[in-house]
Amino acid sequence: MREKMGTLRRTHMCGELRPTHIDEKVVLMGWVQRERNLGSLIFVDLRDTTGICQIVFDSTVSKDVFKKAEIVRSEYVLAVKGLVRKRESINKDIPTGEIEVLAEELRILDEAETPPIYIKDDDNVSENMRLRYRYLDLRKPFMQNNLKMRHRAAKVVRDFLDENSFVEIETPMLTKPTPEGARDYLVPSRVNPGHFYALPQSPQLMKQLLMVSGMDRYYQIVKCFRDEDLRANRQPEFTQIDIEMSFVDVDDVLEINERMLYRLFKKLKGIEIELPIKRMTYKEAMERFGVDKPDLRFGFELVNITDIVRNSQFKVFSSIVKSGGQVRGINVKGYGDKFSRKDISSLEDYVKTFGAKGLAWIKIIEEGVSSPIGKFLSEDELNNILNRMEAEKGDLLLFVADKAQVVLDSLGNLRNEVARRLNIIDDSKLELVWITEFPLFEYDEEEGRYVAKHHPFTHPMDEDIDLLETEPEKVRAKAYDIVINGDEIGGGSIRINDPELQQRMFKALGFSEEEALNKFGFLIEAFKYGTPPHGGIAYGFDRLVMLLTNSSNIRDVIAFPKTQSATCLLTGAPSTVTDEQLKEVHIRIDLED
Amino acid sequence: MREKMGTLRRTHMCGELRPTHIDEKVVLMGWVQRERNLGSLIFVDLRDTTGICQIVFDSTVSKDVFKKAEIVRSEYVLAVKGLVRKRESINKDIPTGEIEVLAEELRILDEAETPPIYIKDDDNVSENMRLRYRYLDLRKPFMQNNLKMRHRAAKVVRDFLDENSFVEIETPMLTKPTPEGARDYLVPSRVNPGHFYALPQSPQLMKQLLMVSGMDRYYQIVKCFRDEDLRANRQPEFTQIDIEMSFVDVDDVLEINERMLYRLFKKLKGIEIELPIKRMTYKEAMERFGVDKPDLRFGFELVNITDIVRNSQFKVFSSIVKSGGQVRGINVKGYGDKFSRKDISSLEDYVKTFGAKGLAWIKIIEEGVSSPIGKFLSEDELNNILNRMEAEKGDLLLFVADKAQVVLDSLGNLRNEVARRLNIIDDSKLELVWITEFPLFEYDEEEGRYVAKHHPFTHPMDEDIDLLETEPEKVRAKAYDIVINGDEIGGGSIRINDPELQQRMFKALGFSEEEALNKFGFLIEAFKYGTPPHGGIAYGFDRLVMLLTNSSNIRDVIAFPKTQSATCLLTGAPSTVTDEQLKEVHIRIDLED
Repeated sequence: MREKMGTLRRTHMCGELRPTHIDEKVVLMGWVQRERNLGSLIFVDLRDTTGICQIVFDSTVSKDVFKKAEIVRSEYVLAVKGLVRKRESINKDIPTGEIEVLAEELRILDEAETPPIYIKDDDNVSENMRLRYRYLDLRKPFMQNNLKMRHRAAKVVRDFLDENSFVEIETPMLTKPTPEGARDYLVPSRVNPGHFYALPQSPQLMKQLLMVSGMDRYYQIVKCFRDEDLRANRQPEFTQIDIEMSFVDVDDVLEINERMLYRLFKKLKGIEIELPIKRMTYKEAMERFGVDKPDLRFGFELVNITDIVRNSQFKVFSSIVKSGGQVRGINVKGYGDKFSRKDISSLEDYVKTFGAKGLAWIKIIEEGVSSPIGKFLSEDELNNILNRMEAEKGDLLLFVADKAQVVLDSLGNLRNEVARRLNIIDDSKLELVWITEFPLFEYDEEEGRYVAKHHPFTHPMDEDIDLLETEPEKVRAKAYDIVINGDEIGGGSIRINDPELQQRMFKALGFSEEEALNKFGFLIEAFKYGTPPHGGIAYGFDRLVMLLTNSSNIRDVIAFPKTQSATCLLTGAPSTVTDEQLKEVHIRIDLED
Repeated sequence: MREKMGTLRRTHMCGELRPTHIDEKVVLMGWVQRERNLGSLIFVDLRDTTGICQIVFDSTVSKDVFKKAEIVRSEYVLAVKGLVRKRESINKDIPTGEIEVLAEELRILDEAETPPIYIKDDDNVSENMRLRYRYLDLRKPFMQNNLKMRHRAAKVVRDFLDENSFVEIETPMLTKPTPEGARDYLVPSRVNPGHFYALPQSPQLMKQLLMVSGMDRYYQIVKCFRDEDLRANRQPEFTQIDIEMSFVDVDDVLEINERMLYRLFKKLKGIEIELPIKRMTYKEAMERFGVDKPDLRFGFELVNITDIVRNSQFKVFSSIVKSGGQVRGINVKGYGDKFSRKDISSLEDYVKTFGAKGLAWIKIIEEGVSSPIGKFLSEDELNNILNRMEAEKGDLLLFVADKAQVVLDSLGNLRNEVARRLNIIDDSKLELVWITEFPLFEYDEEEGRYVAKHHPFTHPMDEDIDLLETEPEKVRAKAYDIVINGDEIGGGSIRINDPELQQRMFKALGFSEEEALNKFGFLIEAFKYGTPPHGGIAYGFDRLVMLLTNSSNIRDVIAFPKTQSATCLLTGAPSTVTDEQLKEVHIRIDLED
């Protein structure tokens, strides 16, 4: 049975009715969450995007309506007209729990087959099923709330930037293939045979051109694309909050972004973050936390004991130090008794995934220390280590000895892993920190040359410019990341606006003038005609929304996401196309090797 | 010479200084619009995105600053610190014309080569040059204002929809190739060899799925793509305001959109449009104006004289009528003397482009009528025609006799063309009208079957549903377009939410059940699980901004548009890629035939 709404119009949303509405005549429309037929009474929980309201069908009120209500099943779409009244047994679990609606009129707007997944937050179904039936999965309150939070976050950002004279400008989706960086998604051109567009990896070059255009302050919330192998929490298409400003240096960019972040967390979470946001140089972050995106919600900082064990009889340590490596440790303060030998062995397996060869440990117990390496260390060495690491009874010390990069990587990640296993991370806490003064270059072993850590237009720190030719590895950049709770949520830099400096930068990257022109010709040309100092930032909007919704899965903040094999289980994209279609865009499929 | 901003920070924008700022110390930053060196005084017009301010360098104030100012040229980027003072000779043409800034400090932030195009609105340069040097073209005040208007329009729309409980939800850019409609842009998949994504032509199916998801009210300002041959004012990628709502019928959708349009024109143009907006059925629009997007800013409505000339001795008319054709005319009221025989002959050439074989005409002059067809018409016929067309002295009557479609098409377009040539269209006037009750189907001569005029999910008008099988050509749709000043700015419909009705619709379109499943399977499946009545609309955002900025060229409201051959003259997209890149996505170029 399917009826029309006719002249019936919704007067209220299901979730908004309260005792103040008692005795009002209302019309609600929504889906049946569940129905219970008690013989002469039928109770229906009606659900819309705002919540649930209990509807009562009473056979003594209207036999016809009651009869119709008898055929109602889960997920039927109903329009109900009725009187709000006080409920006999109050349900404190839902905001409308004090009232119910006594139905006088019912229209069954659509029937429903039994859905293949339950419409409730904890349905315990596989993610593949959720994605296959996404339109049902999105009926779940938590998914509705996630998408609404996403909407509100975008709205707050836009309101803030608009108030601050930023202009949202759309940049093209059909762009030129990128010479550097990640792999492009290509789009064959029909009108220009043998030529291809690329989907943008970011609007970086376009937003710099907009600064050359004198647009002064630009932003855009925009889809970007990278055809990379998908790790967890990566999507082939993702959304960026992209910002660029003219006549600014680092402090100016950070200041306005701090006010934007303040607004976001205040409006959406009711949290007033402390301004100015902490700053930490890249160097300090690596020293203290082993990573450039430290989670500051807990301790366990890295401690360098290289000097103490340099000449130790414990060859595992001293030989590594002598070959140029280092030894660092973390103090899992107060949690020594939470880790059995088996647990520690599993932590050792964990650090091995980061290239470490082993994990040394010392527990401080009632009787002194318990440690497989204790007997190899001199009393002095042991005491110095305990002192340096501020070890007390109940602590567990964990050490990695290796090349610097392996030590930092292993311990930086181990630190997070230990906190996760201890379940001591306070989810309600927000720890924001700017990481600044990134190295301008990193050495690319494969290419045997320096490559730009951010991109080739990143401005070096003024005081380091003269190291460009002599010690490029020491040059720090006017680059910054905003890290929240150990996640890099955004990053950016001040850009080079001086053509001569740009040439020196290209040279340091090993580009000939011709190569540079070939790769970035139109930007280099644009820079001839008067370029303001400028800089900006880009936020990973999906990650920001994950943070705002406490989601650990990126697919929970995207309406129609792709799987890790970049497919859409709902629509079946990507799919095959006809030879005719391929011919029109002048390509053929080539499945060889 | 290039200097750093150092600690200097902009205090004001160039365009905002007024006499109230006199005696204030300010720092301005911007581009040199022009400089005049008068020997001991140098005047520089400094430009930023807000306007222009006159800067004075006085050699008696500071020799060093003056000396630096002497090297300044057009489009140099400057930072200037100085004192605001009253100007001796007031310039009434610019808002800052009563003041100037006496420079005390100058930093040349960047030099500039002589730009290849002038930075002024009426630079008279070819559009290709403008697109090639888009970053310079965008420095022009009118382009800056167009992009700002675009931003503000998006902001007003978002604010309005947010207030009205619409949630902006991003739908995928990498979607499934579309079975019907325009040509897709294809994106080869690397992970799924031989498979392709398509860029969305519109989020139509996704937004209907969101209604099935219970999201209730959705919107999105979103890029869409159609790989069609580009006529004027078309772009391969364009932007849509996409809206969908649940539990609504036609009136509900129109009502909320009328409030949105009211807000837009009020906020952005200071114009209060009259609500409710006029409605006109498709049938009436075609009868009176010959087109489904009538420009109501002027008259010249179509008049049907078929019955009058049915038995005329003038065979050109009567034979066409007898073979099922018709004769209609327009009265170019009061402008008879503006059209010479040569002008009318050029109008005849114009209607021939729409398939008309000729253009008959009658002028009402002092002495009676002047017309090459006058002598073939009886006195009665002539008088009846003049009466029906309310002809008076000074009028020009123009007639086309042909098949109905040709008559309507020719005269509908001729009506607009005549008004354009007379230059009588009031650009400050806004005439909005909803065109409603579109035919559900149109006959596709090529395919030899009925196709959906909007799309296969459009709901028929309730009273016409039973004609689906018997007289499909008579079925009207719950579809509507918003037409402003003769441009279709948006359109939409109520969708079918009843699977049985949907099956009847597919049958009328000649789809077998299998074909329907193949084309729209996932939407048909979704509709099994409880679908609310729903409908929506989509606006062409680029066209809306053209209207708001009085632009006649779509490329004037897009920052980085494509040419009519779908290329970007600035970046050179599309471009060639390496064989390696093609191999990775499992395709080869195929340039045969």
